[in-house]
Amino acid sequence: YAASETTTDETAAPRRKGVTWINIDGVGDIEKLGELSRLFGIHPLAMEDVVNVHQHAKLEFFGDTFFFVARMPSGADGFNTEQVSLFLIDGVVITIQERPGDCLEPVRYRIANKLGRIRRRRSDYLAYAIIDAIVDGYFPLLDQYSEKLDEAGTLLENGGDRSLPLHLHNIRSDLLLIRKVVNQHRVALNEILRDEAEIVGPDTALYFRDCQDHIQQLMEAADTDRETCGELRELYFAMLGEKNNDVMKVLTIIATIFIPMSFVAGIYGMNFDSDASMLNMPELHWAFGYPFALALMATMAGGLLAFLYRKGWLA
Amino acid sequence: YAASETTTDETAAPRRKGVTWINIDGVGDIEKLGELSRLFGIHPLAMEDVVNVHQHAKLEFFGDTFFFVARMPSGADGFNTEQVSLFLIDGVVITIQERPGDCLEPVRYRIANKLGRIRRRRSDYLAYAIIDAIVDGYFPLLDQYSEKLDEAGTLLENGGDRSLPLHLHNIRSDLLLIRKVVNQHRVALNEILRDEAEIVGPDTALYFRDCQDHIQQLMEAADTDRETCGELRELYFAMLGEKNNDVMKVLTIIATIFIPMSFVAGIYGMNFDSDASMLNMPELHWAFGYPFALALMATMAGGLLAFLYRKGWLA
Amino acid sequence: YAASETTTDETAAPRRKGVTWINIDGVGDIEKLGELSRLFGIHPLAMEDVVNVHQHAKLEFFGDTFFFVARMPSGADGFNTEQVSLFLIDGVVITIQERPGDCLEPVRYRIANKLGRIRRRRSDYLAYAIIDAIVDGYFPLLDQYSEKLDEAGTLLENGGDRSLPLHLHNIRSDLLLIRKVVNQHRVALNEILRDEAEIVGPDTALYFRDCQDHIQQLMEAADTDRETCGELRELYFAMLGEKNNDVMKVLTIIATIFIPMSFVAGIYGMNFDSDASMLNMPELHWAFGYPFALALMATMAGGLLAFLYRKGWLA
Amino acid sequence: YAASETTTDETAAPRRKGVTWINIDGVGDIEKLGELSRLFGIHPLAMEDVVNVHQHAKLEFFGDTFFFVARMPSGADGFNTEQVSLFLIDGVVITIQERPGDCLEPVRYRIANKLGRIRRRRSDYLAYAIIDAIVDGYFPLLDQYSEKLDEAGTLLENGGDRSLPLHLHNIRSDLLLIRKVVNQHRVALNEILRDEAEIVGPDTALYFRDCQDHIQQLMEAADTDRETCGELRELYFAMLGEKNNDVMKVLTIIATIFIPMSFVAGIYGMNFDSDASMLNMPELHWAFGYPFALALMATMAGGLLAFLYRKGWLA
Amino acid sequence: YAASETTTDETAAPRRKGVTWINIDGVGDIEKLGELSRLFGIHPLAMEDVVNVHQHAKLEFFGDTFFFVARMPSGADGFNTEQVSLFLIDGVVITIQERPGDCLEPVRYRIANKLGRIRRRRSDYLAYAIIDAIVDGYFPLLDQYSEKLDEAGTLLENGGDRSLPLHLHNIRSDLLLIRKVVNQHRVALNEILRDEAEIVGPDTALYFRDCQDHIQQLMEAADTDRETCGELRELYFAMLGEKNNDVMKVLTIIATIFIPMSFVAGIYGMNFDSDASMLNMPELHWAFGYPFALALMATMAGGLLAFLYRKGWLA
Repeated sequence: YAASETTTDETAAPRRKGVTWINIDGVGDIEKLGELSRLFGIHPLAMEDVVNVHQHAKLEFFGDTFFFVARMPSGADGFNTEQVSLFLIDGVVITIQERPGDCLEPVRYRIANKLGRIRRRRSDYLAYAIIDAIVDGYFPLLDQYSEKLDEAGTLLENGGDRSLPLHLHNIRSDLLLIRKVVNQHRVALNEILRDEAEIVGPDTALYFRDCQDHIQQLMEAADTDRETCGELRELYFAMLGEKNNDVMKVLTIIATIFIPMSFVAGIYGMNFDSDASMLNMPELHWAFGYPFALALMATMAGGLLAFLYRKGWLA
Repeated sequence: YAASETTTDETAAPRRKGVTWINIDGVGDIEKLGELSRLFGIHPLAMEDVVNVHQHAKLEFFGDTFFFVARMPSGADGFNTEQVSLFLIDGVVITIQERPGDCLEPVRYRIANKLGRIRRRRSDYLAYAIIDAIVDGYFPLLDQYSEKLDEAGTLLENGGDRSLPLHLHNIRSDLLLIRKVVNQHRVALNEILRDEAEIVGPDTALYFRDCQDHIQQLMEAADTDRETCGELRELYFAMLGEKNNDVMKVLTIIATIFIPMSFVAGIYGMNFDSDASMLNMPELHWAFGYPFALALMATMAGGLLAFLYRKGWLA
Repeated sequence: YAASETTTDETAAPRRKGVTWINIDGVGDIEKLGELSRLFGIHPLAMEDVVNVHQHAKLEFFGDTFFFVARMPSGADGFNTEQVSLFLIDGVVITIQERPGDCLEPVRYRIANKLGRIRRRRSDYLAYAIIDAIVDGYFPLLDQYSEKLDEAGTLLENGGDRSLPLHLHNIRSDLLLIRKVVNQHRVALNEILRDEAEIVGPDTALYFRDCQDHIQQLMEAADTDRETCGELRELYFAMLGEKNNDVMKVLTIIATIFIPMSFVAGIYGMNFDSDASMLNMPELHWAFGYPFALALMATMAGGLLAFLYRKGWLA
Repeated sequence: YAASETTTDETAAPRRKGVTWINIDGVGDIEKLGELSRLFGIHPLAMEDVVNVHQHAKLEFFGDTFFFVARMPSGADGFNTEQVSLFLIDGVVITIQERPGDCLEPVRYRIANKLGRIRRRRSDYLAYAIIDAIVDGYFPLLDQYSEKLDEAGTLLENGGDRSLPLHLHNIRSDLLLIRKVVNQHRVALNEILRDEAEIVGPDTALYFRDCQDHIQQLMEAADTDRETCGELRELYFAMLGEKNNDVMKVLTIIATIFIPMSFVAGIYGMNFDSDASMLNMPELHWAFGYPFALALMATMAGGLLAFLYRKGWLA
Repeated sequence: YAASETTTDETAAPRRKGVTWINIDGVGDIEKLGELSRLFGIHPLAMEDVVNVHQHAKLEFFGDTFFFVARMPSGADGFNTEQVSLFLIDGVVITIQERPGDCLEPVRYRIANKLGRIRRRRSDYLAYAIIDAIVDGYFPLLDQYSEKLDEAGTLLENGGDRSLPLHLHNIRSDLLLIRKVVNQHRVALNEILRDEAEIVGPDTALYFRDCQDHIQQLMEAADTDRETCGELRELYFAMLGEKNNDVMKVLTIIATIFIPMSFVAGIYGMNFDSDASMLNMPELHWAFGYPFALALMATMAGGLLAFLYRKGWLA
């Protein structure tokens, strides 16, 4: 558990107050969190939400305290999220995350290097920058899924695989989940924009609208990928249909050629008594009976092969 | 039938009137309802709607009386709703529900514990809080359906089941129904927002807009789940297609191998008279006739097996 | 043909003019219609539209005359509509319908019983009430189709029926048609809302917006039902797929078991001359040749049955 | 090539200028068009577009000249369009079309008969009326496609046809094309509404919005028809599936009944030497051997028929 | 690497400043770019983006510098894009592209020939004209894909091809990518419209809105084409289904006719001892036994052919 304090005290811009960012990794040290809570007068209910890390992304106001719960994508494999609690109290931004390591490095970098607008503006802008960085953290996640879909596409081109539909289904479920979580942020940001007069200044509200734009892009990307899932499944169906067609063609070709020939063989396997009458299977006693039978079979097979060839099924 | 009166008389905030909430469980005691009706001057038509518990969610105005009919999800299994009638008359909020037990506990808790804004605001805010709690009651219901879909997904991963399409269809029909009911609330809330000048104050209107947001989320969640239904059905189709392909492959392999061999057996089962000519089935009298025939069959079978193996059908 | 005049002359509200509603059933009596036309100065082109009852729902203005053509659902079976022409001239509302019997009874009832706002407002409100009642007349119609879909669903649960896809297609075509007609009303109402300054007062415009809401609901309900059609068709496809799979399984089981056994029978049906050599079918002369052959067949059948059982195809 | 000049000089309405409509059929006579161009100071680039009749529908402004290119549906069969170029210069409306015969007759009729608002308003209204008439010309075209779809539906009810999917695809492609062309008009009209201050008066802008409404309807109708295409294709698939099921059932019934019987025949066609042992096919020498074999076959066939009947496959 | 400077110094319009356009092909000459950067005070971060040519389309503001990254379609085959960086600094427009050859020729032509509004307006209009030209460069690209789809349609009409689903999938993936890139431009343009007060004048903002319109059209066209992809795939499925049906019909016809006949042959191939009893295969010794058997077979075949004919499977 590490409490890193990043303080940015900008006094160059005259009419702006200094901005402090306190960033805490880990929610296990209840005592320290309690101390923090007392120091900044954070509502106990909010602290409960901080510690219980299974909150939806949401915005809450406790008096003048702006409390934003964000879900940050985390973990290398699959879709997992980590809760980031953000408080904006009297020009101080406090963020509490579950584990060290996050997608806020660009924000820290911009602060440290005095890049962009981040040091010229008030604490609500810093809150925006952090939330925006978290939201932007979903872009590489979605890229991962796009890549998985590309791989699935390549797999399909090489003939596909029976586990593919399930694999696609799992990707799609994850995308649906990502979309849901991202949408929670959208709803929470909507609330920020609605109450903009209170805590977030109108200037910063514009930036939050920008963040909404990114969320919109994320949701569209997720939708696009989900559509691609469906597309790949259709491709899989097309291949399955072709495979079925192939199997059936082989069966039909074999059956179509041999069943009539077997029938002829069956005919001349009958035991009718040639002695009883001239009509009873005189072929059996012809000198050329056997060659005749074989020729008959060959003719039938040839005719049927020609028919199948004309149908284009022998290619 | 129980009439519980929860009174919240907030006098701390100077310019706000006291707020009273009367909550009635059960609509069977016509007499008591009549008394209530007389006491608050509720229009008889509204009381009819209260007793006849098959109303759509809707909003009606009877003079200054604001009458909202909500449908609250109820029952542990499947999708059932219970009618909650809400009156807002002169700062008094009256709710009448079919059965005891509801999703309004969070509201009562917040009133009892003086949490949040609920005790600082007027009766229209209480009406909002109740309607919002009812709307939020659909979230766990939808979670149930999401869970059912997860189960169906797991079932599919393990091979699926023939009753699955019907099961998915039923889930989807319920989701459609939920969406319809939730949408009725949306339309009714739209009407509240339109007539906001009259009964609901502009401050509270903002909260109703928030409630609309939740309904939007509910509808999106229902749509998402319905989409997942379709997705699972597609997965089922993919598996069915594979199963069909498997069945057909087995048939084809068996037929492809044995039909030609049977044909050879049929040939040498023919009864051509070898005495009639040298051409008539001399093979039958060869010393190695039978081994030759068996070898011919084995060669054919081997060739066809190699062909099938190359097609990848033997795996 | 019956001309019923329902007059509602409200003088209690001081700043409101009296409102008259003239309702005519049937458009066959050209003379009476002409008289009416002359009396109220209705434009001949409008009268043409009244008599030619195949108009789209639309709104037209002839000077100060507001002329609305609505299509009212009529007939017990399937989807038919009847044209209702509504004029709003100088505070007089004239409606002309094709046949007696309509969905305007609630309006008449409310007028007769002085319920709601209908008698307190101007003629444009009456026009709204009539149009709204016509629009609301589509709700029971859609309920009929929902019911038909429920029946189709039950039919499917019980195994389905080959005429089902066509039946679903017909339902869906009707729903599409209903949607189209309802949408015509939406477009016409849009025109009312656009020209609201002229004839319809801003108060009543609000109600027309409410009517738009209902149309929106109708269209959503129709869309929902159409979606259910598609859903049922998919369910039907799933069942068809299972049926195909069943048929093919039976074929495969029978063929897989008997074709190899027949092959063995074929082998020992060959006529190789055992006298020619020891190699030629010595089995035929073994003491246990026949039992051996039968046992061979039984073993093959048993093995294949075990294989099929392991595939789960025998259940 | 015919140049018909329809002049409508309305002086009754005092504050309105006279309006002139010049209508030219054919774009072959370069000289006359050049003369026209000089007379009204039309930009050479615009004249190029007039002569090169493969323009998209679009709006352009050359100084004060309003230049609208519309595509008018033309030809009896399938979807073809003809370019109509419309200039609005100083109160003069000039339309140039490729061939005589168009969908502007209603406009001419209304001018000639002084109906509606067309003669009471300025030249921009005339431009609107012409554009609106062209847009409305797509309605009968779409009706044609609806009819074709109805025919396709009837064909399907009667068993369908193998060329149907292609036919539906072609209809759908045409509908997509119509939608695209209509959408070009929508975009061009959007531009008119945006620049409304300049050339089109605010009054007329309202009418252009009405025209947008019609385009919206057209696009919805085209979408509806395209959806019906998809619907019919699904119906076709359902029928194809049933057909496949039928074919497979016949195959299965025949195979299921005859393969086991043939196997029995195969058994008693074996040549085991009854002299070698008592165990070798004693049945062959039983007095009732043959009837027994036939009875065995009949029993098997009967049992399988009963099984198939119970499956419901014999109906 | 070629640096072409196109200067347009318009002094005719009095209240407008002169506009300069500097166009640089190639980003390899770091030194020259550095010089440019120093000359116009371009932020180093922006120059990084210029050189690293894998940026998304985006808009950034560095102080008063407007920095737009566009992706221009390039290359003759398939979908590739080239980065175009556009700076708008103090009335100077700088564009830097990867390779010579672009879709900006119409802009240059209009400047050189003093056509349209381009020389009468400020530098922000030039920026608009360039961005608009880049966006419009996607239209021919989409036309290419439409053409490919037309070809695929023609291929399908002529029987289709097994590689078609994959081909359609690839087209659709490209279309999805194009849509994504185009959408990035839409988002960036949204930002321009939002910050319109700062750098882009309100007049030009109108034109950017027009550009948005084009992007909207592009996205709709891409969606339309993707829909056509789906449509063609469905057509392919329909044909595959028909093909499967054909294959199965041939199999069924052959099997249905020959299996029963073979069974009869099998019967009379049995070796029951006629000497043992009168009941044992007396047919074998009938004078007309063989003709009778053949007639029986012919009758069966004829009956089954009639049955198949009645089913319509022989056509």
